[in-house]
Amino acid sequence: MSEPSPAEFRSLVEGIFSDIPFVQEIGLKLHDFDLESQTLSAKFVRKPQLIGNHFQNILHGGVIATALDTVGGLTAMVAAYDRMGGAIDWEEKIQRLIRLGTVDMRVDYLKPGRGESFICHGSVLRVGNKLVVTRMELYNDTDELISTGTATFLY
Amino acid sequence: MSEPSPAEFRSLVEGIFSDIPFVQEIGLKLHDFDLESQTLSAKFVRKPQLIGNHFQNILHGGVIATALDTVGGLTAMVAAYDRMGGAIDWEEKIQRLIRLGTVDMRVDYLKPGRGESFICHGSVLRVGNKLVVTRMELYNDTDELISTGTATFLY
Amino acid sequence: MSEPSPAEFRSLVEGIFSDIPFVQEIGLKLHDFDLESQTLSAKFVRKPQLIGNHFQNILHGGVIATALDTVGGLTAMVAAYDRMGGAIDWEEKIQRLIRLGTVDMRVDYLKPGRGESFICHGSVLRVGNKLVVTRMELYNDTDELISTGTATFLY
Amino acid sequence: MSEPSPAEFRSLVEGIFSDIPFVQEIGLKLHDFDLESQTLSAKFVRKPQLIGNHFQNILHGGVIATALDTVGGLTAMVAAYDRMGGAIDWEEKIQRLIRLGTVDMRVDYLKPGRGESFICHGSVLRVGNKLVVTRMELYNDTDELISTGTATFLY
Repeated sequence: MSEPSPAEFRSLVEGIFSDIPFVQEIGLKLHDFDLESQTLSAKFVRKPQLIGNHFQNILHGGVIATALDTVGGLTAMVAAYDRMGGAIDWEEKIQRLIRLGTVDMRVDYLKPGRGESFICHGSVLRVGNKLVVTRMELYNDTDELISTGTATFLY
Repeated sequence: MSEPSPAEFRSLVEGIFSDIPFVQEIGLKLHDFDLESQTLSAKFVRKPQLIGNHFQNILHGGVIATALDTVGGLTAMVAAYDRMGGAIDWEEKIQRLIRLGTVDMRVDYLKPGRGESFICHGSVLRVGNKLVVTRMELYNDTDELISTGTATFLY
Repeated sequence: MSEPSPAEFRSLVEGIFSDIPFVQEIGLKLHDFDLESQTLSAKFVRKPQLIGNHFQNILHGGVIATALDTVGGLTAMVAAYDRMGGAIDWEEKIQRLIRLGTVDMRVDYLKPGRGESFICHGSVLRVGNKLVVTRMELYNDTDELISTGTATFLY
Repeated sequence: MSEPSPAEFRSLVEGIFSDIPFVQEIGLKLHDFDLESQTLSAKFVRKPQLIGNHFQNILHGGVIATALDTVGGLTAMVAAYDRMGGAIDWEEKIQRLIRLGTVDMRVDYLKPGRGESFICHGSVLRVGNKLVVTRMELYNDTDELISTGTATFLY
C-alpha cells in the first residue's frame, strides 16, 4: 500500500471524523481543510439536545468544548502528518495519528451560544515531533465569535 | 414565597441539573452535594454514543469536558447561593444563579477515559460576589483519576 | 477635576505601567496603545538576570508570563475604561481600574525565548461590565512568535 | 561516572535551581523535595522589587507565575528522572532533564499576594515518557492559598 494522495488523505480525515460516535451525536461535520496552511473547519446545526440553558436557548458549554477539541485534534493530525514527512512509512504515520490525544485544553466562552448553525476553525500554533498546539474559534451563523480555545496534543 | 430549606434547595439544584437537555443526553446525574463544604458530585455511565475512539473504547474528550463544566457550574451555584447570604431576596438569588455562566475552563486529560461508569467531583477554589472558581476531578469505576479541570464562573 | 483627554489618559496608562516595581525590574516599557482598536504593546530587552536557561541563553518562562500578564492587564484597563463610558464619574472609573486584577491566565510557550529584544501585543476578546478577556502575543526581534496567552481580568 | 545517589541527585536539583538567573532574581530557594512522593517545594520572601501594586503592597502576578512555573518544572524533572528508570544511561537522563521545557501553564489568582514570605508546592498529575503534568499551589506565611496552577512539560 502506498502513501495516500492528497485526495485520499482528505477522505481519510473525513473518515476519521465521521467515525467518532460522539461527533455523530453532536452532528459535527468536516467543512474544509487545507494541508498547506494547516487549517481545518467543521460545522454543526443547533438541535434541541445540544442546549445547555433552555430559558435562553443557548448551546451547552460542553457542546462548544466538544467542537473545539475535535477540530483542534483533527487540525493537529493534519499538521503532524505533514511534519512526519517522507522519512516515516505512511502506515506507521497513520498508527501515530490514530493514537493522537488531547493533553490539555483551555476554552474561553466569549458570548452565549445563540444561533441556528455554527462553524469552528482550527489552526496550528506549534508543531514538533511529539506535540502540536492548536488554536480554535467558534462562530455562529451571524459571524459572532462565540468561543475560542487553545489545546495541546501528543502524538 | 419564602427562602427554600436545605432540602428544597437540594431539589432545586437537582431540578436545574436534570432540566439541562445536553446533560440528559450525556446521562449525567447529580450524585451528592454538601452545602457546608461546598462540594458536589455527579455520575454517568458509558454509552456507545459517548465514545471518542472506538478502537480504544474510550470517552470523547468533549464528554469529559461536559461533565467537568456541568459539575463545576453547579458547584459554583451552590457556592454563590451561600455567598449571597441573607442580604439578597432569594428570588433575586435564583435569578442570579440561573444566569451563572462559564467564563473559561482548563481541562487536563490525564488517562484514557476507560471504564463502565464515571464520577465527577467539584469543589470551590475562590468565591467572590461576582466570580466563582472551581476545581473538578473525574474518576472511573476503578478509581483512576482520568481528568482534572479548573473553571471560572460569573454570576 | 474633569475627564482626562485621550492624551492625558495615555499619560495615565504610561504612569500606571512605569509605577509597577516588578515591571521596572523586567524593564518592560509601554510601546504603543490605541483606544479605538483597544490594542496595546510593550517592549523589553534581554538582560542577564531574565535568563531561565544559561546553556541556551533563553528567557525564563516567568519573564514571558510577566510580560503577558502585564500587557493583558493594561489592555484590559483600556477596554474597561472605554466600556464604562460617560455614565460613571471618571474618578470612580480610575478607582475601578486600579483595582483591576488577573483572575486566571493561560500561557503557551511556542518557541524558546531567544532574542535581543521582545515585543508583546495585547488585544480584547471580551469586555463586559465586570470582566475583560484578553489575548497576548510575544514576538522576538526576528519576528518569531515566542509565546501566546489568554487571560481573564475582573474590575 | 556512575548514577548519582539520592543525596547527589538532591544536590543536582539544588544546583539546577540556584543556577537559574531569574530564579535568583526572585530569590526563590528549594525548600524540600521527596523522590518517592514526587513532590517539591520552594520558598521566597517579599522584596520591594517583586511588588505589582504598591497601593496594596501585593506581589506582581508575574512573580507568582515564575514561582509556579519553576516549582512545576523542577517537580517535573524529579518525576521524569524517576520515570526514565534504569534503562537509560544517567548522563543521557541528565541531558533530557536539562532540555525539559514548559509547554503551557494555567495560573489561577485566588487571593491578593499579601505576606512576608511564600511557599510553593508542586506535585505530579501525569508522567509519561515524553510529558509531565504538574499541579502547583502557592501559600503565604499565614497559610492562605494565594494561587494554584497546572502546567505541562515536555522532556
